Amino acid sequence: MNSSRGARRGPKPNMDTRANLVRVGLEMMYSDGYNATGIQGITDRAGVPKASFYSHFSSKEEFGAEVIEAYYSRNEGRLRDIFGDRKRKPLDRLKGFFEDRIAAFRHAAFKRGCLLGNLSAEVADHSDLIRQSIAERLNGWSAFLEECLAEAQAGGDIGDQLAPAVLARFILDSWEGALLRMRAEHSDAALLDFKRVVFGRLLT
Amino acid sequence: MNSSRGARRGPKPNMDTRANLVRVGLEMMYSDGYNATGIQGITDRAGVPKASFYSHFSSKEEFGAEVIEAYYSRNEGRLRDIFGDRKRKPLDRLKGFFEDRIAAFRHAAFKRGCLLGNLSAEVADHSDLIRQSIAERLNGWSAFLEECLAEAQAGGDIGDQLAPAVLARFILDSWEGALLRMRAEHSDAALLDFKRVVFGRLLT
Repeated sequence: MNSSRGARRGPKPNMDTRANLVRVGLEMMYSDGYNATGIQGITDRAGVPKASFYSHFSSKEEFGAEVIEAYYSRNEGRLRDIFGDRKRKPLDRLKGFFEDRIAAFRHAAFKRGCLLGNLSAEVADHSDLIRQSIAERLNGWSAFLEECLAEAQAGGDIGDQLAPAVLARFILDSWEGALLRMRAEHSDAALLDFKRVVFGRLLT
Repeated sequence: MNSSRGARRGPKPNMDTRANLVRVGLEMMYSDGYNATGIQGITDRAGVPKASFYSHFSSKEEFGAEVIEAYYSRNEGRLRDIFGDRKRKPLDRLKGFFEDRIAAFRHAAFKRGCLLGNLSAEVADHSDLIRQSIAERLNGWSAFLEECLAEAQAGGDIGDQLAPAVLARFILDSWEGALLRMRAEHSDAALLDFKRVVFGRLLT
């Protein structure tokens, strides 16, 4: 949240307004996508004049990268809680994480999926800034899985033919793909296939 | 390509125009996404008046579903060729398919991914018509994999703990997710992770 990044026009930017714009933009981009979310719509919903956007952000692209940061930060707490719970065995933590997510998607009627995946599909080819933000955050996320898998390998819970980093990234990619099918089918079938193959076959 | 579906206004629709609109729309939606592709842009590029669009299609949504059909048809020939090649063992066909795709994405500088995944991420929550088109086509695609996996199981090439349909859908989802990371990282790393885990561990 480096406020020196925003272009300066008009009065000194208000940090509450900035945070509010990001919160509203995150909600809208997660629900409707990047191109369907206009700056005018964001400022209307945030209840500020459109010019206010440009006193905080130099472009929609810069704003999008900040939305990705906010999305990741919002989810990082849960990642830390679940993966940091050393009372549970590593595979139980990993399974617990995905079970928690499956329950959440059932609750959310199988909509929205993952913002990182959505923006990769929609924007990665058109913005290096957003593309790199996504790559960085997917990487941050898979590091949680990797640590857990390394621990499971060290404890002999799973085989060690594959590097934990490769397994972690593959599992995360598989999850992202399962979310795409979940949304197309409007059901949890893809998430249950994911769970069955990952925990019933891959991590055995 | 049921021409009776289009709303009727003005002169009798020209089927070449219709096919040209779908071809241009597919190109644009695949490259830029659904919301970034406007009807005006499609008709401009196709060199026809905007009204011509509405003599063929009642809505952008209906057009989008037809674009999905066209995309699938365009790719189905390759699926039939590769998976129908009975001279190769089933796992070699499967591996050959993904190797062919990896080579194609290298050639395409890791852009665009899969239109089915892209539209699922961007549009599935907002159009039941497009959502169901995607689900149907993902299903059609995974049937090719399923048949191949069933054959591999019957021949004892891979274990049969998991139903071929579950494995096929999981592999396809994993591929879709790998494409998302490919685009974020602008590299083939995710595709190579996919190949390593699927053929080095899952299908052994």
